[in-house]
Amino acid sequence: MAEIYVHPTAIIDDGAIIGTGSKIWHFAHVRDTAIIGDNVIVGKSSYIDEGVKIGNNVKIQNLVSIYNGVTIGDNVFVGPHVTFTNDLYPRAIADWEISYTHVSDGVSIGANATIICGNNLGENCLIAAGSVVTKEIPPHALVGGNPVRILGWVCKCARKIASKTLEKGEHRIKCQHCGLLNEIFIH
Amino acid sequence: MAEIYVHPTAIIDDGAIIGTGSKIWHFAHVRDTAIIGDNVIVGKSSYIDEGVKIGNNVKIQNLVSIYNGVTIGDNVFVGPHVTFTNDLYPRAIADWEISYTHVSDGVSIGANATIICGNNLGENCLIAAGSVVTKEIPPHALVGGNPVRILGWVCKCARKIASKTLEKGEHRIKCQHCGLLNEIFIH
Amino acid sequence: MAEIYVHPTAIIDDGAIIGTGSKIWHFAHVRDTAIIGDNVIVGKSSYIDEGVKIGNNVKIQNLVSIYNGVTIGDNVFVGPHVTFTNDLYPRAIADWEISYTHVSDGVSIGANATIICGNNLGENCLIAAGSVVTKEIPPHALVGGNPVRILGWVCKCARKIASKTLEKGEHRIKCQHCGLLNEIFIH
Repeated sequence: MAEIYVHPTAIIDDGAIIGTGSKIWHFAHVRDTAIIGDNVIVGKSSYIDEGVKIGNNVKIQNLVSIYNGVTIGDNVFVGPHVTFTNDLYPRAIADWEISYTHVSDGVSIGANATIICGNNLGENCLIAAGSVVTKEIPPHALVGGNPVRILGWVCKCARKIASKTLEKGEHRIKCQHCGLLNEIFIH
Repeated sequence: MAEIYVHPTAIIDDGAIIGTGSKIWHFAHVRDTAIIGDNVIVGKSSYIDEGVKIGNNVKIQNLVSIYNGVTIGDNVFVGPHVTFTNDLYPRAIADWEISYTHVSDGVSIGANATIICGNNLGENCLIAAGSVVTKEIPPHALVGGNPVRILGWVCKCARKIASKTLEKGEHRIKCQHCGLLNEIFIH
Repeated sequence: MAEIYVHPTAIIDDGAIIGTGSKIWHFAHVRDTAIIGDNVIVGKSSYIDEGVKIGNNVKIQNLVSIYNGVTIGDNVFVGPHVTFTNDLYPRAIADWEISYTHVSDGVSIGANATIICGNNLGENCLIAAGSVVTKEIPPHALVGGNPVRILGWVCKCARKIASKTLEKGEHRIKCQHCGLLNEIFIH
């Protein structure tokens, strides 16, 4: 069974659960009630807050902050410098009031994106680098900008498979790059 | 009297002044002439430059950089990954030329916002996550985008109390959420 | 000959090459095949990936990530929290496919900018703080926004020397601030 690797400079608080094959890199900090799956990478200087739940085969790059109230599925890519939030009304003198965010299986979040809490990310969607996510993102959507808007639709392999408009309902779209038939359901 | 807590991995340079009840977390660095008030939290991996002055009851989240030329009032929230700047004409081969920025009492700065120097932030204003601040922000304004524009006006409790237009002069607006009567003066 | 300074908390992997007079600050990490020139500053908590090549007199501020596939010329300023990327189709379960990015001599990249890979930055261009670079940037261009657009043109000293439109071809523009005659060639 694959071991867990924790760099000597990383800090794992007592009570954190980390799956086999996972690697926690330099100066990262994992809080006490975080649950991290198998074969997960937590990059340099990243922060996994208490209560965060992360699936299997997730890659979290450098300098990422994931806060209490966020859950992450399997096979998710979280680019460098990405930050989540967990309170829509932050004030120094007020208590936290957590809004929850779920990141579905297969999602990729580009570098330096900001995910405002309460907005779920649908399966296999692709958040462009530098995006500010202010609303729920449909599965397979490619979104970018501040605030984000839909720029197209992507395959599981991340290549574009459709342009801007995609009606509500079920779609079956074959990827010209990898040949995969994607089944996409838009609410 | 409440003690100061400094995590063993944080670095506080000789000469930095830190008020009672303050906490400096993992891998943070506070430079020698920084002055930090009482009950301030400095989050993981954050950086407080020399010459920075921070008031009381300020919460600075993870991975924040605050540079020389910035002063911060009381009860300010600085979200994760926020960065300030202090030079409008940065070049590797030129000297610094500092432009000053003041963050007034009660301000909240959302996650991953960028504050371009020389732009003061008015009392109780709320900078949305991911914003790029390129101009002075009036008190109680809610701003967002890159560059920022005014999206509304907020109470001391951070809830919206008015929509986009608010004329110059004095306004007294009661918050429907917390009942507070906000007195707002727009220049 | 000037020494190299490495803060005791910084990690330099075996095989990294660092030029004389360079300084590597707190909690930074330089990977094994990185090549860093003379008189370079690598700021707190920054990350220099394997394969990265950096010229002379480069200032890299705090919390910067520079990835394999990026090369940086001389006299470049990289502001705090800047991140590069190196894969246009990131997925947790797929292999990397690197797109290359070159940062030319004299470029300045403002705080918290995101540089999407495959987009070269021309000599002396100035990327405004918070920008998301999605295309190639001409020499001496001042760009800002998400996605970036051209806001003007700047001197080697970073002051504006021309407004929005500048036709293809060669331009010779004298700076009103420092008197330098800039020769700019737009493709």
